[in-house]
Amino acid sequence: MSLTRDLTHEPKKCTPSMTSPNEKNEQNLTPADQAAGQSVAEEGAVQPAIQSGGQQKTFKDTPLKLESGAALSPFTIAYETYGTLNDDKSNAILICHALTGDQYAASKHPVTGKEGWWEIMIGPGKPIDTDKYFVLCPNVIGGCMGSTGPASTNPATGKAYGLEFPVITIADMVAAQTHLVESLGIKQLFSVIGGSMGGMQVLEWASKYSDRVFSAIPIATAARHSSQNIAFHEVGRQAVMADPEWKSGCYLEENTNPRKGLAVARMAAHITYLSDNALHQKFGRNLQEREKITFGFDADFQVESYLRHQGFRFVDRFDANSYLYITRAMDYFDLFAEHDGILAGAFQDTKTRFCVVSFTSDWLFPTKESRQIVHALTANAANVSFVEIETDKGHDAFLLDEPEMLSAIRGFISAAARQKGLT
Amino acid sequence: MSLTRDLTHEPKKCTPSMTSPNEKNEQNLTPADQAAGQSVAEEGAVQPAIQSGGQQKTFKDTPLKLESGAALSPFTIAYETYGTLNDDKSNAILICHALTGDQYAASKHPVTGKEGWWEIMIGPGKPIDTDKYFVLCPNVIGGCMGSTGPASTNPATGKAYGLEFPVITIADMVAAQTHLVESLGIKQLFSVIGGSMGGMQVLEWASKYSDRVFSAIPIATAARHSSQNIAFHEVGRQAVMADPEWKSGCYLEENTNPRKGLAVARMAAHITYLSDNALHQKFGRNLQEREKITFGFDADFQVESYLRHQGFRFVDRFDANSYLYITRAMDYFDLFAEHDGILAGAFQDTKTRFCVVSFTSDWLFPTKESRQIVHALTANAANVSFVEIETDKGHDAFLLDEPEMLSAIRGFISAAARQKGLT
Repeated sequence: MSLTRDLTHEPKKCTPSMTSPNEKNEQNLTPADQAAGQSVAEEGAVQPAIQSGGQQKTFKDTPLKLESGAALSPFTIAYETYGTLNDDKSNAILICHALTGDQYAASKHPVTGKEGWWEIMIGPGKPIDTDKYFVLCPNVIGGCMGSTGPASTNPATGKAYGLEFPVITIADMVAAQTHLVESLGIKQLFSVIGGSMGGMQVLEWASKYSDRVFSAIPIATAARHSSQNIAFHEVGRQAVMADPEWKSGCYLEENTNPRKGLAVARMAAHITYLSDNALHQKFGRNLQEREKITFGFDADFQVESYLRHQGFRFVDRFDANSYLYITRAMDYFDLFAEHDGILAGAFQDTKTRFCVVSFTSDWLFPTKESRQIVHALTANAANVSFVEIETDKGHDAFLLDEPEMLSAIRGFISAAARQKGLT
Repeated sequence: MSLTRDLTHEPKKCTPSMTSPNEKNEQNLTPADQAAGQSVAEEGAVQPAIQSGGQQKTFKDTPLKLESGAALSPFTIAYETYGTLNDDKSNAILICHALTGDQYAASKHPVTGKEGWWEIMIGPGKPIDTDKYFVLCPNVIGGCMGSTGPASTNPATGKAYGLEFPVITIADMVAAQTHLVESLGIKQLFSVIGGSMGGMQVLEWASKYSDRVFSAIPIATAARHSSQNIAFHEVGRQAVMADPEWKSGCYLEENTNPRKGLAVARMAAHITYLSDNALHQKFGRNLQEREKITFGFDADFQVESYLRHQGFRFVDRFDANSYLYITRAMDYFDLFAEHDGILAGAFQDTKTRFCVVSFTSDWLFPTKESRQIVHALTANAANVSFVEIETDKGHDAFLLDEPEMLSAIRGFISAAARQKGLT
């Protein structure tokens, strides 16, 4: 192949420019306007309703040194907590969220008003029992729910960072979290748990800060992002960047919003979170509130209506540049490469107890990738349990009521608590 | 779910409107400008270089009655032929192309200059031997290589159809082909063969025009489009429609071109034509002409560069509205529904000989869907061979040098020729 040219996206300072009438926000749509049947093409531009989380810590005197060589200073981490930290601060469980997750794991989301994304897992009497444990869930660096990210103000310019925000990695997200954990006086986390990109953070914690992690639960994840997954992320990024309202990342300054591009990105990604069978069983070829096909481009099929709905819902709560940065962080994740291709090197002499979880129908992070983690841990004679759960729910199974997953995690955490003398 | 609203895309007459400066074509890019590393966002708008094929037949006196109730008149079919039709016109093989294919199955493409998409299959001494058979490959109705489609002139307005083009189905494509076949004096096709959407046409031929089909070879296909496949098509359509240069389908009149949207659609689709393993083996996490990641949004990874290249290459040879119409035709295909959910009803008392081919790593049209076809044929005591080919090449395997596929098809065609007394 002669793919020689490679134009660079020069980080561009976000300077407001004249906007022509057709570049301006055409209308302010209410959520009701953004109903599922609506085509992305019919969508008007509105600003994202991104808000800060409840709790925040800003670190002013300890710059966050990034893998790229850049540094973030100051930087803020927004987070939520549930339960009570015990006297010796030994009962903390860190929840690492996925690509489009946030700190509202077990509390109402301030934008959508929906319940937390992991209420099934976290709460009194639940597998992560808030009667026993102190649960800490930070928004990742690069995110858009209060932690420092591309929509934050760049102290050097007084404007939103946009593409001047440095590219961050999973390691950077975790390094930022170490500051938060230290600031709370926690020397060792009882457990670190997360699915998908959250699982990557779990692996990073366990690899780089092994002595600070008593137990680790990486779910539906991989030690490096696959070629196919990079490909899907690249499609999403190109969809965002192809939206003229993206404005080379300066949409906040330009008072535009690449909603359509971000909605298309979300639609493509959402398919990968499910499975062929899940879609077949949920929607099949059922028609959306009609008896016959319409011979047109409306959402004739329920699955089309559902996808459009997913796209529109997402753009209300997520920042387009954050989507670029966080997908990039996942793409760059490669614990193999950091250890000359030998993953076992990432977990040398680890004392952390592991519970690795995968799902049979997850084709985004298939079981074979969890097996690679298990093999690397086994090569270190680590304490590791591996649970592959039979389900047709696909990658998203980690967010759902999967009884086998819930009981496996409940059991593992209880056993680890006994080992740590927490009960 | 309360997905109640469903805005309709009213077919809109394409009337040129005033364009603001930023809506105009910014630049004319040469193919060299559209190199792989380039982001979709950096792409300028140019008109598609779609040309007509070599041979064409226009049917003026026989309106094509469509499943929607509409009719196309006149309608044109562009096609290529290879080999010689014998005296009793009994040696014709019809090639049905896939979604983004065309009539140039075994001859140079007039736009790209590349060799035909199925040269591996068609030619002297090849499985479809042009020394023995007369090979006919038409461009489908709705396409953009000379057959009547949304870019054709609407005789009622004198302008390009755009979204006024009626929605067509696989059955309509095949009905149009029957006119072409009849016009050539061919009473029975010796064989009908095609992969993917081409396979859908093969099934349609065998179902509706059984006595005109001596043998049928549906490859990597299904008797109805799955929910997941509809979902991926919907993402592609939304990507096109989200491009402001799409202009509600009137881009030809408006002198714009939704290249970016169509490129994103192609990128997403292209991933589905491959397999996780194929991508891993072809690209892995290899970097594109650099030694380190750049901490940016360039195409650091070869797979990103490859995908961008696929996107750009595609828009030079394909019409965005054709993409909408042809994906829709596939979505609507459902031979089960036409027979009250019993696929066997589609092939009652068939005398056609079938060779059904699938590929182990094809997750777009997985083997289980070919098995459904085989079961339906078996229920009719049909003459059917089923070949599942072990490959990691994914759906695209039908276009590639898969020796097992080539020898299976060579063998089947030779045997069928003996049965028909052709040799």
